[in-house]
Amino acid sequence: MLGIGIDIGGTNTKLIVADKTGKIFRTLRFSTLPEKGVDSFIQRLSENVLKLKNEYGDEIKSIGIGSAGDVDPEKGVIRYSPNLDWRNVELTSHVTRLTSLYCVVENDANMAAWGAFATEFGKKKVNAFVITLGTGIGSGIILDGKLYHGSTGSAGEAGHLIIENNGRLCNCGKRGCLEAYCGSIGILKRAGEVIKDTNAFVKKYYAGGEFNTIALTKAALSGDKTAIKLFEDTGKYLGHGLSNMILLLNPEYIILTGGVSNAKELFLPSMLEVFKNQPISTPFESVKVKVSDNPELGSIGAALYGIETFEMK
Amino acid sequence: MLGIGIDIGGTNTKLIVADKTGKIFRTLRFSTLPEKGVDSFIQRLSENVLKLKNEYGDEIKSIGIGSAGDVDPEKGVIRYSPNLDWRNVELTSHVTRLTSLYCVVENDANMAAWGAFATEFGKKKVNAFVITLGTGIGSGIILDGKLYHGSTGSAGEAGHLIIENNGRLCNCGKRGCLEAYCGSIGILKRAGEVIKDTNAFVKKYYAGGEFNTIALTKAALSGDKTAIKLFEDTGKYLGHGLSNMILLLNPEYIILTGGVSNAKELFLPSMLEVFKNQPISTPFESVKVKVSDNPELGSIGAALYGIETFEMK
Repeated sequence: MLGIGIDIGGTNTKLIVADKTGKIFRTLRFSTLPEKGVDSFIQRLSENVLKLKNEYGDEIKSIGIGSAGDVDPEKGVIRYSPNLDWRNVELTSHVTRLTSLYCVVENDANMAAWGAFATEFGKKKVNAFVITLGTGIGSGIILDGKLYHGSTGSAGEAGHLIIENNGRLCNCGKRGCLEAYCGSIGILKRAGEVIKDTNAFVKKYYAGGEFNTIALTKAALSGDKTAIKLFEDTGKYLGHGLSNMILLLNPEYIILTGGVSNAKELFLPSMLEVFKNQPISTPFESVKVKVSDNPELGSIGAALYGIETFEMK
Repeated sequence: MLGIGIDIGGTNTKLIVADKTGKIFRTLRFSTLPEKGVDSFIQRLSENVLKLKNEYGDEIKSIGIGSAGDVDPEKGVIRYSPNLDWRNVELTSHVTRLTSLYCVVENDANMAAWGAFATEFGKKKVNAFVITLGTGIGSGIILDGKLYHGSTGSAGEAGHLIIENNGRLCNCGKRGCLEAYCGSIGILKRAGEVIKDTNAFVKKYYAGGEFNTIALTKAALSGDKTAIKLFEDTGKYLGHGLSNMILLLNPEYIILTGGVSNAKELFLPSMLEVFKNQPISTPFESVKVKVSDNPELGSIGAALYGIETFEMK
């Protein structure tokens, strides 16, 4: 049996075909283009699913989808996604109608958490917090070995924890959200304020590339002091946001994943420094911080969650 | 069967004798006087327990204790309590030695949460967040009907969530903690900054009393604009702190308890206003806020938790 795992990101949507062990057989990508509207997206998504179904046949039984934003897993609806600017998207019913496959949707960070849990912890009874550092920031919570949804499936909106009162404007409309500082959009905004000539900056450190977090990472690793400071500050902001989570939930593990986490050596030291200076020290001394090396955690988690829930239904 | 429930507060320590239904038969109080040191406290606590044991005999089987601060329930140790200024207090072993009774200790907010859960929800499978607004601020987390401890028993340190970067100095040594604004000490500090003549203020609104949150409540209810504004601000700060919890944990219920919650009509409207203005609206629309009318929740919870764990051992 195989399952399709789908990760809907602000920029790209990724589809994989995987088996129960998390082994990936095939990967497909297309541009999300959220501004083209929901109908267009569901159409293009389903066409890609049918392409995979055509290739792998009846072995594929299920679709698991991870989407940014506030998702109602029970109804299969994306209630609100600030980064996609979508509201009340009835997703799974339409995908099932168009593809004839069982389909489940969850918050993308929940799916990354499930991927980490299933592949890295072998479903042990751990308390773990998975933070996805991408365009935006999400989190998935595993408590005593189970995905924690909260009462309406909205738990884990870590990107919108306030870390600065009346701080930077976030995509969600609030001010001071963690995401507005440490999501890649937030990092680049902060960078644009201190790097005067971004073209020259890119030319120097990332010839042929864009002004993005890869360029900033390359610059920092080449010793550029402005870029180094930007990542140090990112670590501090992350440390403040995660401190609040640790004080509330006292997890055994924090797992960082998503594109920004590739710059781990640049922001982890200042993040861990914030943990060290906490007067209520026990939960900070005991928490183990891991950065996942697996860039496919979200889509693998979605595929495995789809297979698991299909088999349990 | 009866159990003793003990609530160690910064000012007073309260002992009750209760049965399994939470019915209270007897209440005793003594001054905590944390500055006299741990040995003195344990001695005085045990003397009061023996007094109750003398009155009720062998019917009393267990002691449940709720203490402010970071508690290790497994080892029976208060690891750190900022308000009592105690570290690494081996509590249950000494109390059992001096009283010959089974003894368990938990964070006081956990015990209030257990009291609310056992008496108000009949142990239903709810997700509830109990906030104790006293001298300091604590919280207890009930997830799917169980007391949630986290990996080292430190979960629920809601009083030390940061709500203002580089904000007011907290008893714990950090700046900007929720407790530094909304615990009674924090409220009185803020009040002292805007009320110039506190003696005249007390004389006017609370003759014979002290400058405390009761005086402020009486003043606000009499229309004093400064006092009204202080509680409105308290509600805003609380709203910000609780927003972060709601975004993370998406509970069905928030229960407010502790002395400050008696001023509910003065701070709840501005607190709920913060909830109303959240762009990720689902978890805020679904959460039900209750203020517990039961002032004994902490000690009843401790008594019931002591009885429950004694019977399960």
